[in-house]
Amino acid sequence: MRRVPATFLSLISLDYRTKTPMYRQLYDWFRRAIIAGQMRPGQRVPSSRGLATELKISRIPVLNAYEQLLAEGYFETFVGAGTCVARSIPDDTLSPPTVKAGKGQHESAEKRGLRRLSRRGVALTDIPAQSWLDNLGAFRISLPALDQFPIGIWSKLVARHSRRPQRGIMAYGDAMGYMPFREAIAEYLGAARGVRCESSQIVVTTGSQQALQISAQVLLDPKDRVCMEEPGYPGARQAFMTVGAQLIPVRVDQEGMNVAEIIRRGNHARAVYITPSHQYPLGMAMSAARRMLLLNWAVRTGAWIIEDDYDSEYRFGSRPIASLQGLDTDGRVIYVGTFSKALFPALRLGYVVVPKDLVPAFSAARDAADVFSATLYQAVLTDFIREGHFARHIRRMRMLYMERRRSLVNAIQIQMGDTTEVIGVEAGIHLVALLPPGTDDVAVSKKAAQLGISAMPLSVCYLKPPARGGLILGYGGANAHQIHDGIGKLRMSLQAH
Amino acid sequence: MRRVPATFLSLISLDYRTKTPMYRQLYDWFRRAIIAGQMRPGQRVPSSRGLATELKISRIPVLNAYEQLLAEGYFETFVGAGTCVARSIPDDTLSPPTVKAGKGQHESAEKRGLRRLSRRGVALTDIPAQSWLDNLGAFRISLPALDQFPIGIWSKLVARHSRRPQRGIMAYGDAMGYMPFREAIAEYLGAARGVRCESSQIVVTTGSQQALQISAQVLLDPKDRVCMEEPGYPGARQAFMTVGAQLIPVRVDQEGMNVAEIIRRGNHARAVYITPSHQYPLGMAMSAARRMLLLNWAVRTGAWIIEDDYDSEYRFGSRPIASLQGLDTDGRVIYVGTFSKALFPALRLGYVVVPKDLVPAFSAARDAADVFSATLYQAVLTDFIREGHFARHIRRMRMLYMERRRSLVNAIQIQMGDTTEVIGVEAGIHLVALLPPGTDDVAVSKKAAQLGISAMPLSVCYLKPPARGGLILGYGGANAHQIHDGIGKLRMSLQAH
Repeated sequence: MRRVPATFLSLISLDYRTKTPMYRQLYDWFRRAIIAGQMRPGQRVPSSRGLATELKISRIPVLNAYEQLLAEGYFETFVGAGTCVARSIPDDTLSPPTVKAGKGQHESAEKRGLRRLSRRGVALTDIPAQSWLDNLGAFRISLPALDQFPIGIWSKLVARHSRRPQRGIMAYGDAMGYMPFREAIAEYLGAARGVRCESSQIVVTTGSQQALQISAQVLLDPKDRVCMEEPGYPGARQAFMTVGAQLIPVRVDQEGMNVAEIIRRGNHARAVYITPSHQYPLGMAMSAARRMLLLNWAVRTGAWIIEDDYDSEYRFGSRPIASLQGLDTDGRVIYVGTFSKALFPALRLGYVVVPKDLVPAFSAARDAADVFSATLYQAVLTDFIREGHFARHIRRMRMLYMERRRSLVNAIQIQMGDTTEVIGVEAGIHLVALLPPGTDDVAVSKKAAQLGISAMPLSVCYLKPPARGGLILGYGGANAHQIHDGIGKLRMSLQAH
Repeated sequence: MRRVPATFLSLISLDYRTKTPMYRQLYDWFRRAIIAGQMRPGQRVPSSRGLATELKISRIPVLNAYEQLLAEGYFETFVGAGTCVARSIPDDTLSPPTVKAGKGQHESAEKRGLRRLSRRGVALTDIPAQSWLDNLGAFRISLPALDQFPIGIWSKLVARHSRRPQRGIMAYGDAMGYMPFREAIAEYLGAARGVRCESSQIVVTTGSQQALQISAQVLLDPKDRVCMEEPGYPGARQAFMTVGAQLIPVRVDQEGMNVAEIIRRGNHARAVYITPSHQYPLGMAMSAARRMLLLNWAVRTGAWIIEDDYDSEYRFGSRPIASLQGLDTDGRVIYVGTFSKALFPALRLGYVVVPKDLVPAFSAARDAADVFSATLYQAVLTDFIREGHFARHIRRMRMLYMERRRSLVNAIQIQMGDTTEVIGVEAGIHLVALLPPGTDDVAVSKKAAQLGISAMPLSVCYLKPPARGGLILGYGGANAHQIHDGIGKLRMSLQAH
């Protein structure tokens, strides 16, 4: 670093070792001097020759810097009068800015109402930190067995589509998604989930969260009432919150969401969010009678049903339970699904199946949200489904998860059987271990997170304080050893508490 | 298809040729019969043996179907009394549903208020069809030269990360993005765009549209006023509309957005959306004086400035103009950018640089929107930048686009010089051809779309009716031949009109 005093300028610092070119350093210096008010509008700047001499550098970078400053309007020239700082630069410059960056300053600016976020922005920031989601250790919710994914087959398909990509793989795509992918999804959902739809009703999304967010945007106005399962899925709560909806908790029992309560209390509800095939997080399936009651009520009142169908491929005792959407004859069900858990989360591909008359609104909302989904993985997954790899993977994983579930249930019974009660083991890739009444499950989860274990507290799924806390334990991503070890650490966390 | 009359059932149709298994066909039939009210709660179902005999099929599929119907609660059994339709099924079933699916029916349901969308959902659907976006023909706005993309290098990097993926490439990622990618972006923006930020301030998004949508969610409440350039970017308008913001058009002249007008009218504006380096769609750069006036005003009033910096790498006459963000000393600028145009649109990667104290809100909003961005392309692009391919590609494309711009300007002058006036040629990958006053540019664009040409009408960028229509012509994705041919078709479209 060499400091060169210039006759009427303060010190220009040029750094000869950095990669930043000399002209750029000069440009930056002049710009900052103008912003800081060290150089005033109308003030003459030294001739390029004079400055080069003074700085002992070539004249070329000086000329380049001046040219750029002229082009951007910081300098202006007058015939015969040389170059000066543009007189159009406001005289009450930002020098020194009334408020400087820095945390302390921002706080005071906030007090003056100058750093105002939206109510939504404030509410989103108010959600407490969830340290159990900071690690990918044993029991991480929704994490599948990544090491069992057929990566060889997958990466061959990736190579197929990325080496000699069709124009469609690189150009702008349809907001609704890549057509062959939508066709494959429609076929799969019809066969495996009893969903009745055409490919034209499928909107590809970046996952179930975006599907929920878009559904909320299309269907709900601020203050609209949405019935939520209690306990229920926090991601859905977040999505409905961003549109300012009012959340109505509805109790869940052995048959799922208490539909009678919806009917009694929810006459003005605009929508119901529900996980009928595998209640999140408790795991029960909704009975046929309640499904029909719910649909009936929706038809009568004009409410929408948002069905979040997740993990339904993994049902251990019986065959997968068909979707609620398949029972709907009035186009009231919006059906949400994802490939994140069946394949891998970083894939970011999900979908929402919408009634035909809602297609234009959902398509426009998807366009406004983020235009369309990256095409490569859509094309790869299409082939993965069409060539039978998807069905094969699901079958393999069903066996594996059954095994892991058994390991987990055993480990809990042996190591924590005296203090916990296990529920929700019929399906999916997580179960719930209820803790002794009065236990602060958030504290236990935080303690476990310090030991590298990701155990989600049950209470975060409640809108109102729950009668009993618990831990939601994912077993998709943990092998027998990790399960055994993890339960040991959980027991320690519980005892420490 | 074989129809088998059952003694007390209506006709059960079994299809022996389909892939749908027999048990599933029986299950579907019973479920539908119950929903349709053909079978009533409490009604006895035939014994499995009896039904199998009657249908002349094995008893196993019948048993499987019954088991599933029992598991899901459609059937129930009583010791000694056999199996019947569950008495808990509501008696006022959906038989026939009060409203049947079908367009006509939905319309009447809508009249009864039963198919009510949100105000936002209705507004989104009201946007007229944009047939010029249905094709990828010559002049498609924002489309880069896909055939010039170094796909060999890119696909090698894709293979590197997909063949033996690290766990992080497949598991849940950070809502803010993949850290090495954020570091590469921060470095690039500092060097190439004069953005002053740390990697902790970068939120990776699925493109600039999501960046705008999230910014709107964090910063704006319904009815909040947002100053928009007139004409301006329709995608931004869409994003602000989805949060119910009120859009204030502010005129654009040779120095960019008229800041004096903002100061005069916009005292209550919460935010300004602006494209200072390359005004969308007219192409001018904002002068230094106006930049400072705008920042000054924002500091005084507490308004946010959303800077959308696009195509800025491609400036032909001078060096790229540094960002407005780099002048901001008060953390008032939210800086939005994308890789879609520099690389390829289906990549779906962009970013937003946010003031440090806004990071938690933006991170939470990104999480609520769609959790995080697919990791593969983030890792691939990180390497692409780090290994110098990105800078090399930009340099090559700058030369190519200069060439294409020249072809386009020449073609317009030769073939349409008498009717059009070209503006906005200093930067980017599009220009504007102003049409004779009174021309309906939407009609011309629609006509051109029928000929396979994608020319966006200038008027769709205005909130108020424009004084003069025009066509926004992208030249990134069209070679000299396509440009020549395309202008011929445009001339025909204009004459036809």
